[in-house]
Amino acid sequence: MPPDSREDGLSGRIVISVDAMGGDRGPAAVIGGLTEAAKRIPDVDFILHGPEEELTRLLAKRADIAARCTIRHASGVVTMEDKPGQVMRHGGDTSMWSAIESVREHEATVAVSCGNTGALMALSVIRLRKLPGVNRPAIACLWPSRNPGGFNVMLDVGADIKADAPDLLQFALMGTSYARNGLGLARPRVGLLNVGTEDHKGRAELKAAHELIEASAGIGQFDYVGFVEGGDLPSARVDVIVTDGFTGNVALKTGEGTARLVGDFLREAFNASFLSKIAAVLALGSLKRLQARIDPRRVNGGVFLGLNGTIVKSHGSADATGVAAAIELAYRLAKSGFQERLAARVASAAQAGQDAAQGGEEDGTSE
Amino acid sequence: MPPDSREDGLSGRIVISVDAMGGDRGPAAVIGGLTEAAKRIPDVDFILHGPEEELTRLLAKRADIAARCTIRHASGVVTMEDKPGQVMRHGGDTSMWSAIESVREHEATVAVSCGNTGALMALSVIRLRKLPGVNRPAIACLWPSRNPGGFNVMLDVGADIKADAPDLLQFALMGTSYARNGLGLARPRVGLLNVGTEDHKGRAELKAAHELIEASAGIGQFDYVGFVEGGDLPSARVDVIVTDGFTGNVALKTGEGTARLVGDFLREAFNASFLSKIAAVLALGSLKRLQARIDPRRVNGGVFLGLNGTIVKSHGSADATGVAAAIELAYRLAKSGFQERLAARVASAAQAGQDAAQGGEEDGTSE
Repeated sequence: MPPDSREDGLSGRIVISVDAMGGDRGPAAVIGGLTEAAKRIPDVDFILHGPEEELTRLLAKRADIAARCTIRHASGVVTMEDKPGQVMRHGGDTSMWSAIESVREHEATVAVSCGNTGALMALSVIRLRKLPGVNRPAIACLWPSRNPGGFNVMLDVGADIKADAPDLLQFALMGTSYARNGLGLARPRVGLLNVGTEDHKGRAELKAAHELIEASAGIGQFDYVGFVEGGDLPSARVDVIVTDGFTGNVALKTGEGTARLVGDFLREAFNASFLSKIAAVLALGSLKRLQARIDPRRVNGGVFLGLNGTIVKSHGSADATGVAAAIELAYRLAKSGFQERLAARVASAAQAGQDAAQGGEEDGTSE
Repeated sequence: MPPDSREDGLSGRIVISVDAMGGDRGPAAVIGGLTEAAKRIPDVDFILHGPEEELTRLLAKRADIAARCTIRHASGVVTMEDKPGQVMRHGGDTSMWSAIESVREHEATVAVSCGNTGALMALSVIRLRKLPGVNRPAIACLWPSRNPGGFNVMLDVGADIKADAPDLLQFALMGTSYARNGLGLARPRVGLLNVGTEDHKGRAELKAAHELIEASAGIGQFDYVGFVEGGDLPSARVDVIVTDGFTGNVALKTGEGTARLVGDFLREAFNASFLSKIAAVLALGSLKRLQARIDPRRVNGGVFLGLNGTIVKSHGSADATGVAAAIELAYRLAKSGFQERLAARVASAAQAGQDAAQGGEEDGTSE
């Protein structure tokens, strides 16, 4: 099977597990997003987790979508303030736990939640367990870029606060697998985030990772472009940016904050004078397209990689449009058979790495 | 003397040492910037370092400014590709070395260079030496913000690739000193960059720094707002953002890259249709003001803190406008007596910290 093949023999309808609770805008926004996504995707059904009475009432207004939803009752809600440890010990009755359980029981291929990231990652790790061969799971995000597809992948953006060289190599393998199946790139280009592009720059673990990733490019069927800098995150010379979860999280939030700042300044500029207000009306179509290009809701969905099951984390503040984007991403990954391909990729890379260490080098199996 | 006093008894003209070479646009851009700045600042003179013949020729066209410049001949140039170690060993004949020497010899108060950052920092450390009490120098940058003054301070953005808790405390002290003298803030608010705002988040050294900085807020005469995230860099709830040089460098370049991406998308949007082109003409004034607000040239100038002398690092790609901004920043710092105030602040904080460790807490002297 060619590595970029999207056809994988999966048939039948895709089932997505959805945590209806825990987002800032409550279950109505989640059901709104689910409805938007369902209109565009005919072959998807949902298992919806949360308080049965409330969800039944919200779905009562939408007979078309209700027919495609199974409600799974869960009375508890994980709040944004809950500590991951508490949720792991006492969260058995929550909608978040229940949503993950549907993936664990193979009732659904992917789960989507707008809830507390730390709790969602902690629960996902203890309930789904790490994939064989993976030391540290990662959260991958999409980043608006100058590439033809419009997005780059960056990971880890916050699953953990550190990563050593072998972890960073696994991030490269998992990130390329995501780029193949989520963005349709046959041979992704990988860069390692650093404070300069010269080989001698950066921390010791980055120099070690630099060599490890370079040596694994053949086996992993990706191209390694070497070190990249913060300014390269939207660059067209790279598709997958690898970094530790601390740096990635700061970069992600810095980028979002900067885009928001420029957007606010732009709005002020158009409100500054009579002429500029007329200009805003004339340019409305173009400005709307611009807004869509940098709209964080369009890239909504951090994907948890490295577990026995795929979890899509939607922004806590996501509205219906944001939730719909996260659900469509979950659908795309489920449809491509991403989870099985990623598992095979990690396993074969570990095997190939062992073979290479024994002196030979072997092409990995397709993903 | 009150801590926010700008009047400090310094009199006479300010002398700034300028490295004419090493920038991407050559000495003409540097002399252009120097001319722009000199027009706006009557009480500044320059020592200009570089090849005498070339500089004399460039200055010949500008008699007004030539009278305020002393040329100091240096035949060598530090290129962007030169390794800091090489420059430290063999860079004695370079304009960069010579520019630092003028500060070392107290001929000039501040030096400005557009050259290679790594080499400039390495040379500055060996020639000027670290301030007593400072373990790790830092580079501070200005960040466009929603605060009334329009800027926040972030440090370290790349002097070093790591920082432990006592280093981060020193960054807080040096950053507040810079905010007082560079931005005129009487009591700056300090935040520590992390992946979340809850006390339990982040790496061990960040938790330790969190407690150290909190305990030093009284002595250091700043307010500590606790952990901040990447999205808070332009926030109005903080003035000085403290982080290690690896994270700060990635954040700085990510922010610049994002602003550039949005700017490019905006230009494309205005070129998309006939109507949007008309709109661009109508909104020209407002858009130019917007551009000025986010123009990286306006915030040009990373300041090296923690040495026996102040160095302003201009962007390598700075044009005349960028160089002028760096020179005006250097002038503001020189005029305020920043270097002496910073040295006193670091020394008194170290002393006060020792006193506090012995059980008492004492208000530091003004800066």
